[in-house]
Amino acid sequence: MTATTGLTAACPIARSLAVVGEKWALLIVRDALAGASRFAQFRTSLGIAPDMLADRLGKLVEHGILERRSYREPGERAREEYLVTPVGRELAPALAALGGWGLAHLPVADSSPFRFVDAATGAPAVAGFVDAAGRPVPLESVRLERIAGPVVTGPAR
Amino acid sequence: MTATTGLTAACPIARSLAVVGEKWALLIVRDALAGASRFAQFRTSLGIAPDMLADRLGKLVEHGILERRSYREPGERAREEYLVTPVGRELAPALAALGGWGLAHLPVADSSPFRFVDAATGAPAVAGFVDAAGRPVPLESVRLERIAGPVVTGPAR
Repeated sequence: MTATTGLTAACPIARSLAVVGEKWALLIVRDALAGASRFAQFRTSLGIAPDMLADRLGKLVEHGILERRSYREPGERAREEYLVTPVGRELAPALAALGGWGLAHLPVADSSPFRFVDAATGAPAVAGFVDAAGRPVPLESVRLERIAGPVVTGPAR
Repeated sequence: MTATTGLTAACPIARSLAVVGEKWALLIVRDALAGASRFAQFRTSLGIAPDMLADRLGKLVEHGILERRSYREPGERAREEYLVTPVGRELAPALAALGGWGLAHLPVADSSPFRFVDAATGAPAVAGFVDAAGRPVPLESVRLERIAGPVVTGPAR
């Protein structure tokens, strides 16, 4: 979760992994996208230690992926909940891509407890490649080019 | 990189993160997709300790993401190189999604040292959502639904 600096910061994949590559971060975003907002909801879903969850939620707030909001149930003290921001919502394609890969190549069940859908149609939506005009590009046609930049492109140490 | 078991295995996002959530794995796959195959190439690109790189390459081979092949330069001993498999290639959308998010939200430069392109046209390709028929789905329209499964959906401990 450390910020990248200098030469190591050149690759945006490495930069993203420095922020969300930690094992809980993307699962917290997953739960937030699926409607969880309260500490106990994340804790129950993830089976994570409370102090670790508090730390990870704080980091995601720092990075603008979640935002804190106070709420108060009748007769109880004020508590904080965590809502996914537009920046956090833009991690959805990464989650969908990882989920699609896991479903295809690490199957333990026929189905997933989560799925992305097009809210306009109710049809499942999966991660794929599109061009600048929004047209789909088949995976077989996609190449990764190294176009520039420094030699050292790993994550921040 | 531990295999998930039991209840924790239900979510394919969590399963994928158990395999490729470790900080070097996706960067090694990135370099392999961009044409790196030899130990020294990964080492130079990543600035990673040799024993750690050897371990991570071995894990990626175990998971069928890379495959080992022997090669021998004239007058040198046989060495091994690492080629990305079709299973590994299917991680490209996850890399593209993480890279796109990093470029949008963690910018340190105007450009990236890597880009995905449609080999058929040379045009940039980015991660997005598509439906089962391959039609693009706008991010604003996408929702993550919890559809079933156990309460505990975190990564393997």
